[in-house]
Amino acid sequence: MAHKITSAANPLIKTLKSLHAKKGRAETGLFLAEGARAAREAADLGVWPDTLLYAESALARGPVRGLIGDAERAGVRLIETNEAILAQIAKRDNPQTVIGAYRQRVWPLEMLEADTIVALEGIRDPGNLGTILRTADSVGAGGVVLLGETCDPFSVEAVRATMGSLFAVRLARASFEELSRFKAARGAVMIGASLKGAALEADRNIGSRAILLMGNEQSGLPADMEAACDLLVRLPMRGRADSLNLAVATAVMLYDLWRRRGYDGARA
Amino acid sequence: MAHKITSAANPLIKTLKSLHAKKGRAETGLFLAEGARAAREAADLGVWPDTLLYAESALARGPVRGLIGDAERAGVRLIETNEAILAQIAKRDNPQTVIGAYRQRVWPLEMLEADTIVALEGIRDPGNLGTILRTADSVGAGGVVLLGETCDPFSVEAVRATMGSLFAVRLARASFEELSRFKAARGAVMIGASLKGAALEADRNIGSRAILLMGNEQSGLPADMEAACDLLVRLPMRGRADSLNLAVATAVMLYDLWRRRGYDGARA
Repeated sequence: MAHKITSAANPLIKTLKSLHAKKGRAETGLFLAEGARAAREAADLGVWPDTLLYAESALARGPVRGLIGDAERAGVRLIETNEAILAQIAKRDNPQTVIGAYRQRVWPLEMLEADTIVALEGIRDPGNLGTILRTADSVGAGGVVLLGETCDPFSVEAVRATMGSLFAVRLARASFEELSRFKAARGAVMIGASLKGAALEADRNIGSRAILLMGNEQSGLPADMEAACDLLVRLPMRGRADSLNLAVATAVMLYDLWRRRGYDGARA
Repeated sequence: MAHKITSAANPLIKTLKSLHAKKGRAETGLFLAEGARAAREAADLGVWPDTLLYAESALARGPVRGLIGDAERAGVRLIETNEAILAQIAKRDNPQTVIGAYRQRVWPLEMLEADTIVALEGIRDPGNLGTILRTADSVGAGGVVLLGETCDPFSVEAVRATMGSLFAVRLARASFEELSRFKAARGAVMIGASLKGAALEADRNIGSRAILLMGNEQSGLPADMEAACDLLVRLPMRGRADSLNLAVATAVMLYDLWRRRGYDGARA
C-alpha cells in the first residue's frame, strides 16, 4: 500500500529534496531518477528504487499502474503525492509524475565486461557525462570508468542526460594505476584521444578489448596517461574549430571503433 | 578610445543585460559572445562586435590588448568596465573578462556552400544546437539550416556551446519546401536520420552534396519529411538505449559521411 504524503515538511520529502545537492546524495547514498519510463527500464534490468513517488494523477495511465503494482510486489516503498511536491523534488516546473530514489551503485573495475570500455579523466560537465553513458549503452560498451576528480554521475543533470542508460551501463571508479593493471590483465588495447595522435588507418580493426581514454573538457589527457597509451588517435578536423565537444568526440570514436568490428551485435 | 562604464544603471549595460532574454535579442538584433578567444576567432573571420566590453584587469594580457587595438581600428565601440558588471551581463560568477555584443546574422539558404549541410527540424535544446554548430564547423559543413520552430541559436547557452563556431558556420532558416527546392537545384542527396531507416552499406560514398536531415529531440522527423528523403538512415544500436542524444547522433552521421569521402580536406 502506498503512503500518501502531501506536506513538503515531511521528513522523507525533505530528504528527497536534499538529493539535488552532492551532500544529500553522499549522506544517503541515494539519487533521483525522473520519469515512469526510466523506472520501467530500470525495473526490466532488475533495479528497483528505494522509494517510488508518483502523482495521484499518474494512476490514470495503465503503464504507470503496472509499474506501481510491480514495485509494490518488489517491496519498494511507495509514496502517493501531488505535482506540487514532485515539482519541489525535481526542482522544475512540469515535473515528471513518477520519480524514483535509487541507491547509487558503482561497480568494481574487475566486474566490467570485456567489451570496449570508456575511461574518462577528470570529466567536469554532468551533461557530457550523462550523454557519454547513454552513448556507451547504445554501442554496448562494457562499462565507463571515472578517473581522477570528476563531476558526480548521480547528479540530477547527469542522470537526466543518461535517459535511463545509467541503469544499463556499468560505472566504475579507479585510479589510472588500477586501470593500467586491469588493461594488462585483460590484454586490452588502450587508445587515447589526443591532438598529438594520428588518424587510425582506414579499416584497422582494434577488436573489442579496447579501452578508450578521454581527457577532460579543457586540458585533454595528462602527458603520463598519453605515454601509457598503446595508440594516440586524433579525429580528423576540417573547419576552424580545433576541438569537438567531449561527448561528441567520445561518440564518434566509439562508433568508429565499433564500425571496424562490423557493428557486431547490433540490433536488427 | 574606450568609454569607462562602471554603473549597472547605465542604459548600454542594461541593454546588454537584456540580451539574455529572447525579447532583448529580438529588439536589438544583437547577441552576446563571451571570451577573448571567441572574439579573436570572430575577428580573424572578419566579424567584429557592435560593442566590446572588457575588464580593466584584462589589459594585463597581451592578446587582449592586441584584440582591443584591432577592434578600435575596426571602429568597434569599446567599453572598459569591471568584473562585477561583466558578471551581471554574463549572469554568472567568474565571467570571462571580455564580452562582445554581435549583430545576429542568418544567411539566405542560397548562400550556403555546396558541402554537406545539416538541416534541423524543430530542435529544442540550445546546448544541442550549439554543439551541432561546433561539429558542423569541425567537419567543414557548408551550413546549418533551421526548419520549423526551434530554440534560438543566439541564446547565451547556444552560443557558449558553439565555442566560437557560430562565427564560422553559415546558419540559415528555411521552410521544408524551400529546402526541398534548394536540394533539387543543387542536385543534393537528402538523408534523413530515422528509426525506420537502414544502416548505410559499409563503404557507399554519398558525395559531398548531401543534406543531413535530423528530427527533433522527442519526436524525430515528421512522416512527410521522411517521405521526401532519398535515404533514411538508422545508426546501429546494441545496448538497451533506443536513441542517442541529438548532437551525438548528428556528429556520428556527419563523421560517417565524411569518412566515406576519405576525410577530404582534413587538416594535416
